[in-house]
Amino acid sequence: MAIPKEVKNLANELSRLPGVGPKLSMRLAIYLSISDKELAKRISNDIEDSLKNIKQCKICCNVTSDEVCDICLNPDRDSSKLIVVESSIDLFSLEQTNQINAKYHVLNGVISPINGIGPEDINIKSLLNRLINEKIEEVIFALNPNLEGDATSIFIKNEIIEINSKILVSRLGKGIPVGSSIEYMSTLTLLDSINNRDKI
Amino acid sequence: MAIPKEVKNLANELSRLPGVGPKLSMRLAIYLSISDKELAKRISNDIEDSLKNIKQCKICCNVTSDEVCDICLNPDRDSSKLIVVESSIDLFSLEQTNQINAKYHVLNGVISPINGIGPEDINIKSLLNRLINEKIEEVIFALNPNLEGDATSIFIKNEIIEINSKILVSRLGKGIPVGSSIEYMSTLTLLDSINNRDKI
Repeated sequence: MAIPKEVKNLANELSRLPGVGPKLSMRLAIYLSISDKELAKRISNDIEDSLKNIKQCKICCNVTSDEVCDICLNPDRDSSKLIVVESSIDLFSLEQTNQINAKYHVLNGVISPINGIGPEDINIKSLLNRLINEKIEEVIFALNPNLEGDATSIFIKNEIIEINSKILVSRLGKGIPVGSSIEYMSTLTLLDSINNRDKI
Repeated sequence: MAIPKEVKNLANELSRLPGVGPKLSMRLAIYLSISDKELAKRISNDIEDSLKNIKQCKICCNVTSDEVCDICLNPDRDSSKLIVVESSIDLFSLEQTNQINAKYHVLNGVISPINGIGPEDINIKSLLNRLINEKIEEVIFALNPNLEGDATSIFIKNEIIEINSKILVSRLGKGIPVGSSIEYMSTLTLLDSINNRDKI
């Protein structure tokens, strides 16, 4: 049978979203087209709202509806520490700890030659400019602990050293996550957790 | 920090979609708001297109851009057999076998008291009307093999018997799926596969 072109087009575009495969995208397209038209209407309106009002913060590239986000505007934050994240969603996760006293820089991606993403495609230049213009003492990389995240950290670290070798560069500690089972941890994680062991 | 309300609203509505949890919905909302505005625009337009043009087939309740879908219009299909599915996506999956010579009826849901979905909330009445008005010899239930799918089949079967006890009622055979590992099959599946064993 022929799937109506409107449903096919919608499924096709939805499948380009991160975390949405071809099966889920078709399911969502049918759901939006038939099962819940009210929700479909609201989602379409909300997307339009976001497109109109949401932009990148001029300083840290976080999502914001103003020119500068509220973290950058907050005078109580320690602005000598900069946490570098891949995306605003990682920033939100870190903020949920309610324990972080630092500012951020959102790369909006990581270097990934296999996906054609080079250093010039993510917000590295604006980060380096901040290191020149602001008084930053430490840059903390909070990128996903995988090949691309690590390569991106190392690449930017080398650029930072050229600008100011006194800036401390660090990254999130590796080990076993709280609540996990040692049985299911990878060899690399177990090695990290041995090497980063805590005194008790 | 305050997540902009436009992003929060969008994430909130996206999380109501099937298969989209709170983490994915926030990720998608940020992606649509910042990372790929072109895609966001296209998705919003495609949703509007679907809302305008897609409806339920007047006969079988499948998604269609016409009054009646092309399967119902097809005179070469065996219209004495009716396959009952939960949603159009299951219908598409079955059609991909390219071996089915029958017509369909899309329930658009299954009976699920825990989710407040009763028999009157899904397309049972239109199915029963077809059994009265069309010459149907067999109804084949192709619902997901779980509690709700089975309960829905049994409920409708009892209604069918009252209308015409000569109609054959069947459902998809249960067993181990091709390409699976016996090691990972549930006890229930293994029992089904023993009881439904094939002569070789």
